[in-house]
Amino acid sequence: MTRIHVLNGPNLNLLGRREPTIYGQDTLADIEARLIAWGDARKVRVNCRQSNHEGVLIDWLHEAAEEADGVILNPGGLTHTSVALLDAIQAIPIPVVEVHLSNIHAREDFRARSLTARAAAGVVAGFGALGYELAAEALLRLLTADRRR
Amino acid sequence: MTRIHVLNGPNLNLLGRREPTIYGQDTLADIEARLIAWGDARKVRVNCRQSNHEGVLIDWLHEAAEEADGVILNPGGLTHTSVALLDAIQAIPIPVVEVHLSNIHAREDFRARSLTARAAAGVVAGFGALGYELAAEALLRLLTADRRR
Amino acid sequence: MTRIHVLNGPNLNLLGRREPTIYGQDTLADIEARLIAWGDARKVRVNCRQSNHEGVLIDWLHEAAEEADGVILNPGGLTHTSVALLDAIQAIPIPVVEVHLSNIHAREDFRARSLTARAAAGVVAGFGALGYELAAEALLRLLTADRRR
Amino acid sequence: MTRIHVLNGPNLNLLGRREPTIYGQDTLADIEARLIAWGDARKVRVNCRQSNHEGVLIDWLHEAAEEADGVILNPGGLTHTSVALLDAIQAIPIPVVEVHLSNIHAREDFRARSLTARAAAGVVAGFGALGYELAAEALLRLLTADRRR
Amino acid sequence: MTRIHVLNGPNLNLLGRREPTIYGQDTLADIEARLIAWGDARKVRVNCRQSNHEGVLIDWLHEAAEEADGVILNPGGLTHTSVALLDAIQAIPIPVVEVHLSNIHAREDFRARSLTARAAAGVVAGFGALGYELAAEALLRLLTADRRR
Amino acid sequence: MTRIHVLNGPNLNLLGRREPTIYGQDTLADIEARLIAWGDARKVRVNCRQSNHEGVLIDWLHEAAEEADGVILNPGGLTHTSVALLDAIQAIPIPVVEVHLSNIHAREDFRARSLTARAAAGVVAGFGALGYELAAEALLRLLTADRRR
Amino acid sequence: MTRIHVLNGPNLNLLGRREPTIYGQDTLADIEARLIAWGDARKVRVNCRQSNHEGVLIDWLHEAAEEADGVILNPGGLTHTSVALLDAIQAIPIPVVEVHLSNIHAREDFRARSLTARAAAGVVAGFGALGYELAAEALLRLLTADRRR
Amino acid sequence: MTRIHVLNGPNLNLLGRREPTIYGQDTLADIEARLIAWGDARKVRVNCRQSNHEGVLIDWLHEAAEEADGVILNPGGLTHTSVALLDAIQAIPIPVVEVHLSNIHAREDFRARSLTARAAAGVVAGFGALGYELAAEALLRLLTADRRR
Amino acid sequence: MTRIHVLNGPNLNLLGRREPTIYGQDTLADIEARLIAWGDARKVRVNCRQSNHEGVLIDWLHEAAEEADGVILNPGGLTHTSVALLDAIQAIPIPVVEVHLSNIHAREDFRARSLTARAAAGVVAGFGALGYELAAEALLRLLTADRRR
Amino acid sequence: MTRIHVLNGPNLNLLGRREPTIYGQDTLADIEARLIAWGDARKVRVNCRQSNHEGVLIDWLHEAAEEADGVILNPGGLTHTSVALLDAIQAIPIPVVEVHLSNIHAREDFRARSLTARAAAGVVAGFGALGYELAAEALLRLLTADRRR
Amino acid sequence: MTRIHVLNGPNLNLLGRREPTIYGQDTLADIEARLIAWGDARKVRVNCRQSNHEGVLIDWLHEAAEEADGVILNPGGLTHTSVALLDAIQAIPIPVVEVHLSNIHAREDFRARSLTARAAAGVVAGFGALGYELAAEALLRLLTADRRR
Amino acid sequence: MTRIHVLNGPNLNLLGRREPTIYGQDTLADIEARLIAWGDARKVRVNCRQSNHEGVLIDWLHEAAEEADGVILNPGGLTHTSVALLDAIQAIPIPVVEVHLSNIHAREDFRARSLTARAAAGVVAGFGALGYELAAEALLRLLTADRRR
Repeated sequence: MTRIHVLNGPNLNLLGRREPTIYGQDTLADIEARLIAWGDARKVRVNCRQSNHEGVLIDWLHEAAEEADGVILNPGGLTHTSVALLDAIQAIPIPVVEVHLSNIHAREDFRARSLTARAAAGVVAGFGALGYELAAEALLRLLTADRRR
Repeated sequence: MTRIHVLNGPNLNLLGRREPTIYGQDTLADIEARLIAWGDARKVRVNCRQSNHEGVLIDWLHEAAEEADGVILNPGGLTHTSVALLDAIQAIPIPVVEVHLSNIHAREDFRARSLTARAAAGVVAGFGALGYELAAEALLRLLTADRRR
Repeated sequence: MTRIHVLNGPNLNLLGRREPTIYGQDTLADIEARLIAWGDARKVRVNCRQSNHEGVLIDWLHEAAEEADGVILNPGGLTHTSVALLDAIQAIPIPVVEVHLSNIHAREDFRARSLTARAAAGVVAGFGALGYELAAEALLRLLTADRRR
Repeated sequence: MTRIHVLNGPNLNLLGRREPTIYGQDTLADIEARLIAWGDARKVRVNCRQSNHEGVLIDWLHEAAEEADGVILNPGGLTHTSVALLDAIQAIPIPVVEVHLSNIHAREDFRARSLTARAAAGVVAGFGALGYELAAEALLRLLTADRRR
Repeated sequence: MTRIHVLNGPNLNLLGRREPTIYGQDTLADIEARLIAWGDARKVRVNCRQSNHEGVLIDWLHEAAEEADGVILNPGGLTHTSVALLDAIQAIPIPVVEVHLSNIHAREDFRARSLTARAAAGVVAGFGALGYELAAEALLRLLTADRRR
Repeated sequence: MTRIHVLNGPNLNLLGRREPTIYGQDTLADIEARLIAWGDARKVRVNCRQSNHEGVLIDWLHEAAEEADGVILNPGGLTHTSVALLDAIQAIPIPVVEVHLSNIHAREDFRARSLTARAAAGVVAGFGALGYELAAEALLRLLTADRRR
Repeated sequence: MTRIHVLNGPNLNLLGRREPTIYGQDTLADIEARLIAWGDARKVRVNCRQSNHEGVLIDWLHEAAEEADGVILNPGGLTHTSVALLDAIQAIPIPVVEVHLSNIHAREDFRARSLTARAAAGVVAGFGALGYELAAEALLRLLTADRRR
Repeated sequence: MTRIHVLNGPNLNLLGRREPTIYGQDTLADIEARLIAWGDARKVRVNCRQSNHEGVLIDWLHEAAEEADGVILNPGGLTHTSVALLDAIQAIPIPVVEVHLSNIHAREDFRARSLTARAAAGVVAGFGALGYELAAEALLRLLTADRRR
Repeated sequence: MTRIHVLNGPNLNLLGRREPTIYGQDTLADIEARLIAWGDARKVRVNCRQSNHEGVLIDWLHEAAEEADGVILNPGGLTHTSVALLDAIQAIPIPVVEVHLSNIHAREDFRARSLTARAAAGVVAGFGALGYELAAEALLRLLTADRRR
Repeated sequence: MTRIHVLNGPNLNLLGRREPTIYGQDTLADIEARLIAWGDARKVRVNCRQSNHEGVLIDWLHEAAEEADGVILNPGGLTHTSVALLDAIQAIPIPVVEVHLSNIHAREDFRARSLTARAAAGVVAGFGALGYELAAEALLRLLTADRRR
Repeated sequence: MTRIHVLNGPNLNLLGRREPTIYGQDTLADIEARLIAWGDARKVRVNCRQSNHEGVLIDWLHEAAEEADGVILNPGGLTHTSVALLDAIQAIPIPVVEVHLSNIHAREDFRARSLTARAAAGVVAGFGALGYELAAEALLRLLTADRRR
Repeated sequence: MTRIHVLNGPNLNLLGRREPTIYGQDTLADIEARLIAWGDARKVRVNCRQSNHEGVLIDWLHEAAEEADGVILNPGGLTHTSVALLDAIQAIPIPVVEVHLSNIHAREDFRARSLTARAAAGVVAGFGALGYELAAEALLRLLTADRRR
C-alpha cells in the first residue's frame, strides 16, 4: 500500500480564516479530509500534519524517509528562505511534491523564488485547495512510474 | 461543452528527441493524443497547437479568448523573457494554466523566474508529460467552479 | 507629400477590450481613423499596421526606411526586452517616435525601462489614445525642421 | 478659463546656452513666450516660472493646486532623485505632465529612470522645446476630458 | 479590559548581559515588570513571553489573535529574514507593533530592512528598553481609536 | 526648562489634505497644537516649523544645536535620499528622533530604507499623528536620562 | 559532402547600409557569395538564409538538424535575450558556431553577455564579414574532427 | 577541566546516509565518538548534541555560555540565513568555532556566504568529518591561549 | 586678474566643530582667510561663499560662469546624490575643481561614488583643509594653461 | 615581412595536462609549432611566449608595439579581472586578437565577461587549439586590410 | 616521505609587523619554523616560500604539482580577485588547503568571498598562525587517506 | 631630510604616447624630472620607479616603509582590482598619496571606484601630470604636520 505524508508549514493551520481572497475559504481540516478520502479511494494511506516550526518539518521529512513513499509539502513562508528545509528535501530519497495555494509568481518579488523547490520533484502553485489533490495525483503517478522501472 | 486550447511554445515540437533526461521521452503528439482522449472522456473539446513564434502564440491566445473557455500554455523559453506574452495572458478574460515539463526552480538561475506566470491562474512544473494532464484537470475544475458561482 | 507609418506591436489589436482602466476605451481602429483624418487635414499620408510578431515589426521598420519619412511606434511588451527591435530602429535613417498608452514609469519595475527608446527620436507616454496624435504632431514638426535645414 | 502653470527646475534657466547639442538652441524665454501665445489662442492662461531650488518647486506645486487646473513640469536633474518632488506631485489633485528636452532613455543609466514620473499623468521626452507645446496640448485635452465626465 | 501580549524573539532573554553598549542594561524581566506596572495603572492586562523559536512565536501570534487585543513584538534577528513570521502577522486581525532596542537603520546593511514590519501597524526603534513602553502607549491608543470608530 | 524643536520636511504642510488614507486626517496645525499642549503640561518649550526646502531644514538643525536640547524630525521624502540632511544630524551634538506618519517598511521599496535614520537616536513610524507625541515622550526621556548621568 | 547552414538573424539583411562604422561595408549578399565560393572550393554545400523572426530561426535550426552537418549562426539582437533560441541550439545534435560582426565585449553592457553562446560550440566576434569565413573554417574542422573519432 | 560543547544543526543527524559524495560516510555518532575519545585523551569534557531546530540551537548556545568554555558549531543550512543564530553567537562571551563538512565556497552561490561566521572565532570547511577534530584542536588552543593571558 | 569662486555646500559652515576626527579642526573662516591670502600673493581674487541649499549652489555656479574664471567646489553631502548640481557643473564653461576634506573612498559605500565629479575638471580628497589650497593651486595652473593655448 | 607575437597568459603552459576535457589535449608547444609552420608558409614571422605574470604580459605587449605588427593574446584567467592588461591593449596602436580555448560563455558566470576584450580587435573562443590558427588568419587579414588603406 | 609546499602570497612577509590586532604577532619565519618542526616530527618534508607576485605563486603551484604531494596556500589579497590563481589550483592534481589568518567572513564585504577556495580541498580561517598547523594536519590526513584508497 | 618614493604602476611607462587626449603629453621621464627638481628646491629626496608588475609594486611599498617617509602612488589599472595592493598600503605605517592622471569619476563605471584609495591618506585625480606635484606638495605638508605633533 502506498503511503503519502502531507506536511504543511507555518500559518497553514489558519487556512480559511487568513486572507481568504489570497488563500481561499477551505480550512486545512477540509483539505486533509478530502486528501484522506482521495487516498481511501485509491488504496493510498494519507497522513497529514501541520507545524509552524521549521525544525519540526525537517524532523517529519526525515521520518517520512522511513515511513512513507512520497511527500506533499507546502512549506509556507519557509519556501523562500529555508536552506535547512531545502537540505532536508535533498537528503531524503523519496520524492517531494511542493504545493502553494497562491500563485507565487504573481505576488511580491521575495515570494517569486522558491528555494525549497530546487530539490522538489515538481511544483503545483496557484490552484488553492485543489492544488493538494493535483499534487497527490502527480505524486501517485511518480511513485507508480518509479515502481514500474 | 467545455473547450480547452493547449498551446505549446518554442522547441516543444522536438519533445521526445530533445535532451530526454531533462524533458522526458514522450513526443508532443503522444501528449496531445492523451489530452484529447482525456477530453473525450469528459466532454471537453481539446484543441492542440505548437509554434516556435512568439507572435503566433499571442495570436492564438487572442483567438482562444473567442473560441475557448480556458488555455493550457507551455511558453518554453519565452517563459522567462516575454513581456508581450505576459501582456497577452493578462489581456484575455479566460484562465491560462502554465505548464513546464522540467522543474524550472532546479535549473539555471535565468529559468527560475517565470515572467508569464505573473498572469497565469496557476502553474504546474516538473512532472514531465504528466503535467499537461494535471493542468487540464486543474483548468477543468477552475472552469466548473467559475460557472457555479 | 509627407508619409508616416504607424506601427503597433503585440496585443494592441485588443485595444479597447484589454484592461480598459489601464489602456483606455478607444479601439485601435478608432485611433487609426483619427490619425488618418489628422493626416488628411495636413497633407500627410498615414499608413497604419499592427502585428503581434517582433519579426514583422522589424520587417516593417525596414520597409518604412524605403517608403516613409518617419515612424510612430508603439512596441507594446517588446519595449522592455527586444534588442532586435532596438537595432532595427537604430539601423534606419528616419526618425521613430515611441508612444505608450500608459505611463510606463508608474507601473511594474520591468516596464519602467524602455530599451527601444534608446534609439527613438522621442517618447510620448501616459496619454492614452491621445498620445498617438501628439506623436504625429511631434513627428511632423521634426520632419519639417529636418527639411528646413 | 483654464489655467496652466509651467514649472521648470534646475539649470533650465540656462537653456539655449547649456550644451545646445543635447538641449537645443531655444532659450527658456523663447519657450515661455510661445506657450503664452499658444494659451492666448486657446483662452488658456499660462503662468511660467523657473527655479533651481527643489523646495521652491514643491512650494509652487502646492500653490498650483490652489491656483491652476494643471501643471507642466520639467524637473531637470531632480527627475531622477527627488522623492520629495514625487510626493508633492502625488499630493496635489490636479494633473501634472512631465516634459524632458532630451530623450532620457538614450543617455546615462542614472537618467533613464524618472522617479517623479511615477506620479505624473504622462511624459513627453526628447522633442526639445517643442515638447512643451505637446505637453500643453496634452494637458489641455486631459483637462477638457476631465471636465466632460 | 484591554489585553496586550508582549512577545520577544531570539536572544532577547539575554538582555542586560548581551552587548550592553548596543542593547542597554535592563534585563528582560525589568522590562516586563515595568510593562505590567504600566498596564496595571491603565486597566490593561499585559502578558509577556519570550522564545528563541520562530515556530513558537508564530504559535503565540495565532493564540494572541484569540486571546488579546493587540501585540507588541520584538522579533530579534528574525526581523530581517522570516517570511513565515511576516505571514503570521499578516494573518491575524489584531494590530502588531514592532519594537527594536537598537536603531536598526544605523547598523549592518542586512539589519536595515525589516521584513516583518511590512505587516506591522507601526515600528519603534532605537530607544532601548523605553521603546516597549512607547509601543505599549501607541498600541493602547490604536486600540482605543479602533474601538471608537 | 527643556527645549524641543519639531521640524517637518517637504509636503508635511499638506497634512490632512494629502492622501488621507496613507497620512491620516490631522492637519499639521493640529499636531503642532497638541505637541505644544503636551509641552506646557511638562515644562517643555516646544518650537514647531515646517519647510519644503532641504537647505532650510539643515539650517534649522544647525540652529537647534544652539537653541534646543533635542529635535523631532520628519524629513518627508528627504528621508530616503538626503546625505546632506544625514550629515547635518550627525554634525550636531543633540539627539534627533525621526518620525514617520506612515509605516515606511510597508510601502515602495525606495521608501523602506531611511538614510537619515542612520544618525538618528531612534525612529517612530506608522502611528500617524500620534507618532509625534510618542517621539516627544521618547526624546524627553532620553534628555532626562542624559542629564542624570 | 559536408552541408553547412548559415543563418542570419534580425537586421542582418541591412548589412552594408546599417551603421557601416560598426558593422562594415559588405552586404549580406557579398558575404553569402563568398561563403558559397569558399564551400565550392572545399566540397562543402553552403546554404544561406536570413530572417528577422525569432520563430523562423528556431524552425530553421530544427530543419538544420535534419539537413545539415553544422550551423553558422549570427543571432543579431536575439543573442542577448532569447532563451528560446538558446534552447533550440541546445536541442539539436549538430554543432553551431556563433558569429558577431562587431566585438560585443566593446559595446553597451547589455550586448556583452551572449545567452545563445551558452550552447554554441564556439564564438567568433569582431572581425566583420571576415568572421563568417573564420567560422566556416572552424566549423569544417570541428566536423572533420568529429567524423574522425 | 576544559568543557567543549559540540552543536550540530539541521540534517546533520542524517550524516553518512545523506549525499555521501558531498558529506562523506561517517555517521554523526562516529564523529561524536571520536571527539569524545579525543577529549578523554586531553582532559577535555566533550558534550555533543544535534537539533534540526534553530531555536533549540540558540537555547543551547545560551546554555553553553554557562556550562562550557567553548563551542564547536556546524549550523548546517542555517549558516547562510539565520541572523538569530548569528546574534546568539555574538551574544555569548565564549569562542565558537564553525565547522562545515563540505567546502562551502565550491558549491551554489547561496552557500558561499556564511552569515553565522561573522561572529565565529574561526572557520574550518571542506575536510569532512576530520574538520571537527581540527576545530576541536583549534578551540582547545584558543582556550589555552586565552587562559595564559 | 584671475577670479576664483570658492563654493562650500551643506554643513561645511560647521567645520571645526563637526566631527573633528573626520573633518579636522580648522573652521571655514580659517580656510577662507588662507585662500584669500593665497590669492593676494598671486594676484588672484578669491570669493568665498557657503550654503546649505542645493538651489543656492546651483545659482552660484551659474553666476560664477559670468563672474569668475574657475570654481573650487566642495558639494558636501550633495556630492553623492545631486544630478542637478552635476548638470550645473556640466552647463557652465569654466573649470570646476572638486574638494573633499575626508577621503571619500575610505568611508561608507554611499560616499565612495561622486556624482558631481563626473563633470569636474579634477578632484582632491582626503587632505583636510589643505585640500582647498591644493585645489586652488591646481585650478590656477589649469587656467594659466588654458590661457596660454 | 609581417611579424606576429603570440602571448599566452597564466596556466597555459600546462596545456594538454590541465583539465583536457575543457582545454583539449594539445600542448602549448604543439600549438606554437603549428603557428610557426603556418607563418613560414605565409612569410609571417611568429614569435611565441608564455608567462604566468600579469606584469610580464604587459611588458610584452609594450614590446610588441615596437617589434610586431599584431598580437594574438590568450590572457587566461586575467581575461576577467585585469584592468591593467586592458589598459595595455588599449595603449598600444597595433591590433590584438583575443583567443580562448574554451567557450567562456558556457562556463561560470564570472568567466562570461571578458574585460580585456573591450580593447581587442576581435575574439575567437571555444575552438580549442584550432582557435589560435583562426586568430592568426584573422589577424593577418586585418593587417593586410590595414596596409591597403 | 610526504612533501608539503607552503606558499604564502602578498604581504604575508610583513607578518608580525602588519596590523597585529588583525593578523597576530608571529612573524612568517616563526610560522615556517614551527611547520618545519611539525614536519620533522612526522617525516614530512615541509618547503616554505613567500611571494608578493601572483605569477610567482602560479609558477610555484605548477612546480608543486611535480615536487610535492600537497600544498598549503595563503593567497593573501589575491584570494578575492585572482581567477588565474584559481585556475592554477584547479589545474594541478594535488590537494591545496587554503589558510587565512583572519576570519574573512567577519571583515569587509569584498573579503567574504574566496574565489580561490572554489578549487581548494578545504579552508581554515580565523585562527591566526595556528591555522597553518591545522591546515598541515588536515592536508596530511587527506594525503594519507588518498593513499589508502 | 624628507624622503619620498614615487611609484607608478602598469602602463604608466607609456605616458605621453598612450592615448594623449586622456592622459596628456608629458612622458613619465618629464614628470619624474620635475618631481626631482621640486624636491631639490625643498630638501626632499625624491626616488622614482615604475613597474607593470603588481608584485614589484608591493615589494617597493614594503621597501618604502623602511627607506622613505611617504609614498606617491599611481596604481594604474590596479587601482580598481588589487586587494593585495590595498593590503600593502594598509600594512605600511607611512602615508601614501594616490594620484590619477585622468578623472576616474568621469570614465567607465569600473574605473569610478578606487579600491586602493581605501587605505590612502588622500587622492588627487584629473589634473594630468600636474597631479604629481600637487600630491608631492600634499604629502610634504602631511609629513611636516605629523612631525610637528
